[in-house]
Amino acid sequence: MGVIAEEQVSDATRALFGRDAALANRVLAREPELDALERQIEAQVIRLLALRHPMAADLRLAIAGLKISHNLERVGDYAANAAKRAIVLSGLPMVGSLNGFERLAQMVTDNLRSAVGAFAGDDIATADRVWAADAPVDDVYTGIFRELLTHMIEDPRNITAATHLLFIAKNLERVGDHATNIAETVHFAVRGDQLPSDRPKADSSATTVVEPGDE
Amino acid sequence: MGVIAEEQVSDATRALFGRDAALANRVLAREPELDALERQIEAQVIRLLALRHPMAADLRLAIAGLKISHNLERVGDYAANAAKRAIVLSGLPMVGSLNGFERLAQMVTDNLRSAVGAFAGDDIATADRVWAADAPVDDVYTGIFRELLTHMIEDPRNITAATHLLFIAKNLERVGDHATNIAETVHFAVRGDQLPSDRPKADSSATTVVEPGDE
Repeated sequence: MGVIAEEQVSDATRALFGRDAALANRVLAREPELDALERQIEAQVIRLLALRHPMAADLRLAIAGLKISHNLERVGDYAANAAKRAIVLSGLPMVGSLNGFERLAQMVTDNLRSAVGAFAGDDIATADRVWAADAPVDDVYTGIFRELLTHMIEDPRNITAATHLLFIAKNLERVGDHATNIAETVHFAVRGDQLPSDRPKADSSATTVVEPGDE
Repeated sequence: MGVIAEEQVSDATRALFGRDAALANRVLAREPELDALERQIEAQVIRLLALRHPMAADLRLAIAGLKISHNLERVGDYAANAAKRAIVLSGLPMVGSLNGFERLAQMVTDNLRSAVGAFAGDDIATADRVWAADAPVDDVYTGIFRELLTHMIEDPRNITAATHLLFIAKNLERVGDHATNIAETVHFAVRGDQLPSDRPKADSSATTVVEPGDE
C-alpha cells in the first residue's frame, strides 16, 4: 500500500505539471486497489486478533497496521481527487508557476516514504523525524494559498483554475498530515508511548486574507 | 464523542451564520477534548483485546469502536477548521446567502447523529439508510461550489471570503463522508459483511468549471 500510495500522489502531481489527462485517468483507475488492500488488511488483522491473541508489542503492531492502512487509503483518495482536478486543469489556461506545488509534492511524498519505511523497519528515529517535519509543508502550502488568491484577484479568468489548484494544494497538505499520523502510529507501535498531541503546525492558510490591491 | 462532535459542527456553523467569533473560539478551545477521548478509547480497546480476547461480533465491535472514534476525532478537526475560518469571515463582508450552508450543515449533522445512534443501538436499518444518504449532501455541496465561484468572478472583493466559504463547505461535505463511513462500520460490526465499496456519490465539484460570463 505504501508504494502504491506514493506512486498515486506522484503520478497525480506529474499529471498536473504535464497537463497529462491520460496519466490522471490512470491514477483514477488505480484508486480501487488501495480500497481493496485496506479491506484485506483489516480482515487479516481481525483474523490475527481472533486466532492468535497477540499481546503487548505484537498487539500494538496489529492495531498500527490497521490504522496505517487506513491512512494510506486516504492518501489514495487525495491523489484521486487531485487527479480529477488535474484533468479539468489540463483544459484550462495555466495560472502562475507550479514551483510551490513541485516542492510540496516532493516534501509530502518524501515524508510518506520515510514514514512507511519507518513502519517496515521499526525505525523510531525516522518516525520521530517525520513527525516533526510537517511545519515546512504547512509553510509551503500557506504560501501557495496566498499566491493563488492573488492570481484570482488579478484576473477573474483565473478563478476556476486557481480554485482547483487550491484544493490540490490542500490535498497534498493532507497527504503530509497522513505521513505525520503514520509516523505517530509507528512511534506508538514500537515504543508503546504516545507522542504529545500538540504537534508542530504552521498552516495559517485558514486565517489568510488577501484583498484587492494587496497583489 | 458523538455528542461533542455533533455540537462542534453545529456550533462552528452557527458561529459562521451569526458572525460570532466568540462561539468559534469556544469550538477551537474544545477541539482537544475529542483528541483526548480518541486516545482514551484506543487505549481501552487495546486493553480489552489484550485481556479479554473478544471473538466474532465482540471483536468486530471493538475494532468498530476504534474506527468510529477516529472518524469522530476527524469530524472535530473539520469543525475546528471551519471555526477558524468563521472567525476570519466575521471580519469580512458577507458573500451571497448562506442558505446552502444551513441545509448542508443540517444534513450532515442529522446523518452524523443517526450514524452514531445506529452504533449505540446496533441499528443496521438506520446505518444502511445513512450510508445511502450521502448523494444529496454532495449535490448541495456542488451547488455551493458553483455559486461561490460565480460570486468570486462577479467581484474580486469577494475572493478571500468566498475561498474560506469554499473550504468550510468542503469541511461539511467531509463530515458527511465520515457519517457515511461510521454507518459502513456499524453495518460491518453488526452483520460481519462489508457494504459494497462503490457507494452512491454525486460530488461533481472537482470537475466544475465556471467562466467569467457564465454568471
